[in-house]
Amino acid sequence: MLSVANPISKAIFDDNILTRSDVTHTSQKAVLLLSCPDRIGLVSRISNFIFERRGNILDLDEHVDIASGMFFIRVSWSRDDVSITTADLQGAFSPLALELGADWKIYVIPEKPRVAVFVSRYDHCLQDLLWRYKTGEFAMEIPLIISNHRDLEDLAAQYSIPFHVFPKTRENKLEQETKELELLKENRVDTIVLARYMQVLSQRFVDAYPDRIINIHHSFLPAFSGGSPYKQAFERGVKIIGATSHYVTGELDEGPIIEQDIIRITHKDTLGDLIRKGRDLERLVLSRAISSHVDHRVLVNGRKTIIFT
Amino acid sequence: MLSVANPISKAIFDDNILTRSDVTHTSQKAVLLLSCPDRIGLVSRISNFIFERRGNILDLDEHVDIASGMFFIRVSWSRDDVSITTADLQGAFSPLALELGADWKIYVIPEKPRVAVFVSRYDHCLQDLLWRYKTGEFAMEIPLIISNHRDLEDLAAQYSIPFHVFPKTRENKLEQETKELELLKENRVDTIVLARYMQVLSQRFVDAYPDRIINIHHSFLPAFSGGSPYKQAFERGVKIIGATSHYVTGELDEGPIIEQDIIRITHKDTLGDLIRKGRDLERLVLSRAISSHVDHRVLVNGRKTIIFT
Amino acid sequence: MLSVANPISKAIFDDNILTRSDVTHTSQKAVLLLSCPDRIGLVSRISNFIFERRGNILDLDEHVDIASGMFFIRVSWSRDDVSITTADLQGAFSPLALELGADWKIYVIPEKPRVAVFVSRYDHCLQDLLWRYKTGEFAMEIPLIISNHRDLEDLAAQYSIPFHVFPKTRENKLEQETKELELLKENRVDTIVLARYMQVLSQRFVDAYPDRIINIHHSFLPAFSGGSPYKQAFERGVKIIGATSHYVTGELDEGPIIEQDIIRITHKDTLGDLIRKGRDLERLVLSRAISSHVDHRVLVNGRKTIIFT
Amino acid sequence: MLSVANPISKAIFDDNILTRSDVTHTSQKAVLLLSCPDRIGLVSRISNFIFERRGNILDLDEHVDIASGMFFIRVSWSRDDVSITTADLQGAFSPLALELGADWKIYVIPEKPRVAVFVSRYDHCLQDLLWRYKTGEFAMEIPLIISNHRDLEDLAAQYSIPFHVFPKTRENKLEQETKELELLKENRVDTIVLARYMQVLSQRFVDAYPDRIINIHHSFLPAFSGGSPYKQAFERGVKIIGATSHYVTGELDEGPIIEQDIIRITHKDTLGDLIRKGRDLERLVLSRAISSHVDHRVLVNGRKTIIFT
Repeated sequence: MLSVANPISKAIFDDNILTRSDVTHTSQKAVLLLSCPDRIGLVSRISNFIFERRGNILDLDEHVDIASGMFFIRVSWSRDDVSITTADLQGAFSPLALELGADWKIYVIPEKPRVAVFVSRYDHCLQDLLWRYKTGEFAMEIPLIISNHRDLEDLAAQYSIPFHVFPKTRENKLEQETKELELLKENRVDTIVLARYMQVLSQRFVDAYPDRIINIHHSFLPAFSGGSPYKQAFERGVKIIGATSHYVTGELDEGPIIEQDIIRITHKDTLGDLIRKGRDLERLVLSRAISSHVDHRVLVNGRKTIIFT
Repeated sequence: MLSVANPISKAIFDDNILTRSDVTHTSQKAVLLLSCPDRIGLVSRISNFIFERRGNILDLDEHVDIASGMFFIRVSWSRDDVSITTADLQGAFSPLALELGADWKIYVIPEKPRVAVFVSRYDHCLQDLLWRYKTGEFAMEIPLIISNHRDLEDLAAQYSIPFHVFPKTRENKLEQETKELELLKENRVDTIVLARYMQVLSQRFVDAYPDRIINIHHSFLPAFSGGSPYKQAFERGVKIIGATSHYVTGELDEGPIIEQDIIRITHKDTLGDLIRKGRDLERLVLSRAISSHVDHRVLVNGRKTIIFT
Repeated sequence: MLSVANPISKAIFDDNILTRSDVTHTSQKAVLLLSCPDRIGLVSRISNFIFERRGNILDLDEHVDIASGMFFIRVSWSRDDVSITTADLQGAFSPLALELGADWKIYVIPEKPRVAVFVSRYDHCLQDLLWRYKTGEFAMEIPLIISNHRDLEDLAAQYSIPFHVFPKTRENKLEQETKELELLKENRVDTIVLARYMQVLSQRFVDAYPDRIINIHHSFLPAFSGGSPYKQAFERGVKIIGATSHYVTGELDEGPIIEQDIIRITHKDTLGDLIRKGRDLERLVLSRAISSHVDHRVLVNGRKTIIFT
Repeated sequence: MLSVANPISKAIFDDNILTRSDVTHTSQKAVLLLSCPDRIGLVSRISNFIFERRGNILDLDEHVDIASGMFFIRVSWSRDDVSITTADLQGAFSPLALELGADWKIYVIPEKPRVAVFVSRYDHCLQDLLWRYKTGEFAMEIPLIISNHRDLEDLAAQYSIPFHVFPKTRENKLEQETKELELLKENRVDTIVLARYMQVLSQRFVDAYPDRIINIHHSFLPAFSGGSPYKQAFERGVKIIGATSHYVTGELDEGPIIEQDIIRITHKDTLGDLIRKGRDLERLVLSRAISSHVDHRVLVNGRKTIIFT
């Protein structure tokens, strides 16, 4: 297993000062993600709720979607009184949420989302993700890795993360998914990351984790959806390739986009070069999408996302 | 003078729908920019103030600078009751601001900042700026252009904007600046844009417009400050050049940075190529800085800026 | 008409030195663009041809497409002996080209491509293109502008360029195109730039200028081809928008791509914001594609392009 | 040790085709890097040399630096006749090189540069570099890793690369360097990569590997040279941070720049965020610089580099 110094002590090597940077991952705070029909006084009502509980607002961002008339907010606050449990907070907020007709969740930090990573045979995304995980970049736990192949078992072992193999055929797919879902449940997983998992999930599986399955697609969606996107890009002669991280829905490559990025290519780049350059993109884009998700910075608005930065 | 259709009707050509896009420039709304020492309940107090006046918050963004313990906020709200004047609003907010020990301003839309543009002989920034202005990109008025040369007089005339020439020598500089300041005052100018104005302003002039003089410097500051930045970049052999827009302070090229951007260069690029590529950068970076400023999205925090997006 | 100092004297203002930058546009040189089946000794044969005529190679770039087994080269050389005409050069090179089975062209600098610009009602691309043209960025002549609307006539007049209007309906389209083709022929036009020209050209028209009609499409092709790309992008919720410049072929938005670029957007951006941000992209991407084309840096390889930089 | 499938078989998973991509690393070919005073006929002479030996030119790129009157070329060719040794080729080319007054080197592929990696305590660059190495991205061998700390020993062990520790104090520095130089010599190392090695090398050490020591500096040079660049950037309030890979010379952070890249930051980013974002940059920029170097694509021209792409 890697012995990686934590990022704060690293900061000390480098810059000879203490930074508060990733401290936010561990301090006592709460985050509210909420959407409801827009109306006057929403910020006032919500900020009063926090103020009354002696919370100091650390970050507040909101958005109004004019077309749909919907209001979206993310607000985080520090909680000096840690004797108030998550359940207490949720119970206290429920009446207001009901009145507003809101979809909402309150997250309490340092409680961390439990994330299962699904992989197949490519190692680049998993390699990068695990390294970032150990470095402390992600405010999450990875209780297990699931794969349909054995190839990446050693990599998981280096980071001491349980690795489960569920080989899939057309025949056993639903049966294997049932076992996977049970395992996920046992492990109290609330988010799944498909780190180049080369199997399409069934509708039933997707429905079990709505807006909580994050995929990385190796193209600039909606261009080159489906299979072999680098080959498609190569043959079309584009001058830029991309990668897209999105939530998985029942429609392939059509879910709400969380993050995208691109890199320039030229006529000198072979298909192999596209694959190589794309690997760097996939890693970066997936890691940013994961960060946004586990920091509770994403709200889904129909086919689109709101990413609070 | 150019006859340019407004951007909304343009949107119709293109996409056959009405967009609310730049409508925000003209609707009745108010913007509060405020900074004060951080304490509990600030968002609540401010949003209550707006709620009590039946304002619907359109956009709220805040930031806490941990190091200095300062709180920064920008909040905009729609005002159905337009009978409330700016003075009324300011009067009503004053007691709270006083209590919080705040620096603050309330802007009422569609009142627009009055911006004077200073130029010398290069036309690229002015050309671009005036074109965007006519297109409706900037929520501002340009009552006049000031230059130390006659070169760009025709360009100003195309857009029917008064053009004043104040040639400067070492001897007459302060005297000319006095005249400029009077002219600015007469025109109720509250912001100055130096669109490649090749004269250093005196401390007295700078002091008359604190955090309200926007400059474009043709390098990626703090690299290559001072004269001939493209030549410096060319000789150093950098692989990327940049442009920086910042507020002017008494120290040359040291003011708070509003916006920066870069472009890649190679060994094949001559100094002339750097100048050419840099022109595109300068135009973009300056225009973004101006937009942020006139939309009241910038707060200065010591040597740094907070840019609410 | 604008009085714009040339870029070289500008360089003097700024950096107090003479640069060779755009001098290359006017010096006596020749450019060979050639493609042929790959075989041993091609560079040797071609460089010998130049050497024998006392040419000094200024720039040579080549590319071998492994899949098709084709060789592509661009080579430029200075010509001290300007008494050799283009026809002489071409005559001298013909036997070698024949032997190699090559597609080829020799261009003699400072002869400039004659480019007709087609526009409709949007001014941003034309505005930018004409400004760059006057600044000396493009090694080309613009003998005329053609439009199906009168809107941009004044803009053309500012730059003293003849402006011809051919309104089009479904009924008169072919007839009008015939007149346009005659006018283009009279003006010895060899390249057409569609600077947001909102009419689909007939196959016959396209065939008259194979790989010589440059279009700007306001999306990151192949995503959002066809109409209303910004609206499509807005509704899909992408995090990045793009623009694509390509040669026009019989298939809409399917021609060989010359240049692409992108800009990041967020959930806060309205459709109007996409249109505004996209305007900046369209201008930049189109101008880069034009530069590559008129500098004879583009070779078409089936559906793709080779861009020598 | 990681078991990583090679990139070609990977390409098969993904896109169901064979690509020639990284095949180029292993095919029989030669690369000439040469600089000399510019004169007529250089390309002809050099390409004839290759043609006479039945070489098929795969890639040729050249550059003329007008200011210095110097000619630079990189040309690669396939060698069917592998019985010709490197020494044979060099011997055959020597007379021409002498006549031209050239600095030159001929490299024969698949012979690979032997690269020593120097690290201290940060693992991000080494982690990334070793992963890319195993994936086959770099056409090089890493016979050993040298450090002044033990921290990254386990990481080296995972990739089965010998790890040597030379702790340094002000007193023993030269002595330790002597041992390092001996070790490098024993291992026939020809290039050194400083992957965040936190020790300044002595002039004697630098002189032993002129233009063959690659450093990664965590700023956009020349901005923020020296220590704590992220802290400097944070305090200056820049909107973009960068990383720079350059050859090491006697002057700290002043060597010829090979590659740079940047990432956007905002006022919300803490110093810790800069460090985290910068890590991604450092990895990418260093890996690109290494690729250019080991693919023999870099020529040094005084304080600058020519990077053939």
